[in-house]
Amino acid sequence: MEDIKNRIRIEELLDRVVSAEEAASWIEDGMSLGLSGFTRAGDVKVVPRALVKRAEKEPLKVSVYTGASLGADTDKLLAESGILHKRSPFQADPAMRKKINEGDFYFVDIHLSHVAELVRSGIISIDYAILEAVSITEDGMIIPTTQVGNSAIFAEHAKNIIVEINLAHPLSFEGVHDIYDPGKQGERMPIPLIKASDRIGTIGIPVDINKIKGIVINNEMDSPSTIVPPDEETQIMANHLIEFLRKEIAEGRLTNSLAPLQSGIGSVANAVLHGLLVSEFEDLEVYSEVLQDAVFDLLDAGKVKFASCCSITISEEKMKKVFGNFEKYKDRLMLRPQEISNHPELIRRLGLISINTALEVDIYGNVNSTHVRGTHMMNGIGGSGDFARNARLAIFVTKSVAKGGTISSIVPFVSHVDHTEHDVDVIVTEQGYADLRGLAPRERVELIIENCAHPSYRAQLRDYYYEALAKGGQTPHNLEKAFSWHTNFEKTGTMLETEKELEPTKN
Amino acid sequence: MEDIKNRIRIEELLDRVVSAEEAASWIEDGMSLGLSGFTRAGDVKVVPRALVKRAEKEPLKVSVYTGASLGADTDKLLAESGILHKRSPFQADPAMRKKINEGDFYFVDIHLSHVAELVRSGIISIDYAILEAVSITEDGMIIPTTQVGNSAIFAEHAKNIIVEINLAHPLSFEGVHDIYDPGKQGERMPIPLIKASDRIGTIGIPVDINKIKGIVINNEMDSPSTIVPPDEETQIMANHLIEFLRKEIAEGRLTNSLAPLQSGIGSVANAVLHGLLVSEFEDLEVYSEVLQDAVFDLLDAGKVKFASCCSITISEEKMKKVFGNFEKYKDRLMLRPQEISNHPELIRRLGLISINTALEVDIYGNVNSTHVRGTHMMNGIGGSGDFARNARLAIFVTKSVAKGGTISSIVPFVSHVDHTEHDVDVIVTEQGYADLRGLAPRERVELIIENCAHPSYRAQLRDYYYEALAKGGQTPHNLEKAFSWHTNFEKTGTMLETEKELEPTKN
Repeated sequence: MEDIKNRIRIEELLDRVVSAEEAASWIEDGMSLGLSGFTRAGDVKVVPRALVKRAEKEPLKVSVYTGASLGADTDKLLAESGILHKRSPFQADPAMRKKINEGDFYFVDIHLSHVAELVRSGIISIDYAILEAVSITEDGMIIPTTQVGNSAIFAEHAKNIIVEINLAHPLSFEGVHDIYDPGKQGERMPIPLIKASDRIGTIGIPVDINKIKGIVINNEMDSPSTIVPPDEETQIMANHLIEFLRKEIAEGRLTNSLAPLQSGIGSVANAVLHGLLVSEFEDLEVYSEVLQDAVFDLLDAGKVKFASCCSITISEEKMKKVFGNFEKYKDRLMLRPQEISNHPELIRRLGLISINTALEVDIYGNVNSTHVRGTHMMNGIGGSGDFARNARLAIFVTKSVAKGGTISSIVPFVSHVDHTEHDVDVIVTEQGYADLRGLAPRERVELIIENCAHPSYRAQLRDYYYEALAKGGQTPHNLEKAFSWHTNFEKTGTMLETEKELEPTKN
Repeated sequence: MEDIKNRIRIEELLDRVVSAEEAASWIEDGMSLGLSGFTRAGDVKVVPRALVKRAEKEPLKVSVYTGASLGADTDKLLAESGILHKRSPFQADPAMRKKINEGDFYFVDIHLSHVAELVRSGIISIDYAILEAVSITEDGMIIPTTQVGNSAIFAEHAKNIIVEINLAHPLSFEGVHDIYDPGKQGERMPIPLIKASDRIGTIGIPVDINKIKGIVINNEMDSPSTIVPPDEETQIMANHLIEFLRKEIAEGRLTNSLAPLQSGIGSVANAVLHGLLVSEFEDLEVYSEVLQDAVFDLLDAGKVKFASCCSITISEEKMKKVFGNFEKYKDRLMLRPQEISNHPELIRRLGLISINTALEVDIYGNVNSTHVRGTHMMNGIGGSGDFARNARLAIFVTKSVAKGGTISSIVPFVSHVDHTEHDVDVIVTEQGYADLRGLAPRERVELIIENCAHPSYRAQLRDYYYEALAKGGQTPHNLEKAFSWHTNFEKTGTMLETEKELEPTKN
């Protein structure tokens, strides 16, 4: 109880501690919920589970908005329980993915920086904000745990708030968050952040405590990240990226401390960042969405001097090291709302180097980040659009082939466009990199094919292009065959026109 | 000569007045030129013509960068002379369009706000900046004419500058421009603009006068705009838009003075803005790229109290009225660099209502602004991406059919994506509007078909969708048929599956 009093430092709120079941009982059919949680970090853990349990006995539909993906199998439970009317803006769970693609509920895929504006304008309305916290302070601030996500904007606009106090996270998290609300469009001032390490807001989310309807206690660590360690191919990709960055330094466009780095979620982006460990670059800064393991290795090595983010999603091993020794990292870290970590104003001002993963890329540099064969949702666009559009360097990484070489990541025409040719600066695969800046579509083709496509697919890509070229145009295409690689894969199980063996990867 | 001394107010520069032919003779093969000119406004007029003339006698290739499209048939002359290696970032000339699509030279289609960053980083290097001006002041500032475009960034980074002093524009233009340079990424401060009418910079482009190699005199008005006056259908579209805006006011998201308006170039966008003349909205502000006739009508009617822009492109009649009486408008106008008029930081902060023209839209809300049948360039993306991504409301307008009803502007899959589903809020056609905010792809389909598609194509669109739906997915598609409407048009001259008569337009 003493511990609870340290965590809930307003006397009258102590009476509002309830069970997860009781809190879940307040949710009514048709409501919209705003949950904390961003890439498995800082998500509320026990109330959603109680809600799903309740839905076993009575019909219930809710819309669930979050920062990004949830951990603790919550997205799986929500999807499989049939409780969902709508889910937004991001998920990464295989069971949820399946249900989305079966049309079981609506999934709304939104730029992560845009969610706050939609809440502010009332397009997304929130009945209950359900937010994980390490504590509620004397002056009525909710201190988040390992993410900020959309928690601040949900708290401000929700009719009611339920807080999950997580005892598994130390109170030393207090002071690592920086909560800033730009305010209404048309009335707001410039966001006063000019360096990744600038503190511009408060250490917690200021709330009207009368809106806090209940407080639930949990004692669960975040679900650890599921990223795969770097392999030989991702190491090669990291080397290509480093080679490109060296060229930028040689040409006077970057210095040895580069520019603030953003790296998307996922194994490839993590591996690429990991590759910087053995580079000559130093005094690096990170201004990103999610911090994965690699950033903490770079902090440990003294390569990165400051890291700003919106969530921390790390492996179990790294969690023990970082959260068990948080004071060591605290003054080199800051956690911000996703509206701020992903804000176009700041991304452009800071001039980020942005590294995100592509699902497929076409010969003109358009990128698909979300839809398998143009139809089936993978995870969502996340923050990749926020960053790519506004970054100093919008870099997309992907292995050149997938599924044992039967899928080429470089295709004639991407089956879904998330990032247009206007927003893609550099493509990196294990084959090499293509620097597309300032180039016309016809200049891009050969560069992408020669530098990025797998050797097994190069001739086939050129065949497509030369046939299209005969028809003319700024961006030559043969619309009859533009998606033939995708439809061939569906029919034959491979994009390769003849069943030839894959040529060995170039090193 | 007295007039010239008023126009060139630094003694030593008077000696640098040369003929257009002499100035053109300095340009060397392979050079990159940065020309003033934005949507036919404020373009240099005599030096490019002399350069084209010179190229008749000797082989010469240059790359030409501008603000946007040029007037005075310069783009036509450049394209047809064979002088071009590269042209960027925008054009709107039929002869140039033809040459681009024939692959005669490279056209690089760039977000208009991004050009300055590419110049700053040296990806685009400028040998000669050739800039139209009303004057050069005592303190060494170049005062532009009817556009700012990229003139400031070209002047700063060019090795040499040639100025065309245009005597046809009155000196009263001095004081209407606001030149602001954000500086290097990573070192820059917030842009201190918080209202459309804020002055944040200088009245001219500060330059090192040693870089001014020559000054040429011209005395030509801008080419007048070629927009078509509003017709019955555009009037209906304006009414739909006004109806939507009224709903936003009723729901408390806007007030009667709306939010700063941006409207793209073109007859439809102009007509839609013109429709506001007879609306109840008042005290409007414009924060746009190009001011067309409609904005001056709104200023005259007292509906618009301030208009910020990057260029003024108006009809001959309107030119006489506005430029002949410029003092009357001057304190309600400001001309800014395109980096500032189109800056994501400012568009998001001000919360613009952005109205741009779509070439085609698909059933999920993706927009093609540039490529006819996916391959042939129309004009370029211009600023539409800058605005749509960051605006409070990203509205796209298009007539539901083109070419006598043989082309549906609403298609199963757009043949080129410039604006993804993530960036498109509202679609308006003469049939009605579809408000897509917060909606999943499967929710968008029926809304777009029923509210925006032409009645003749609705059943055919539904047929496509229901067949695709059987295959499942977040965004159901049948990739075998996704572009069949486009390929059918090529084969049969119509997208209509059966040669049925068009149903009459709904009023």
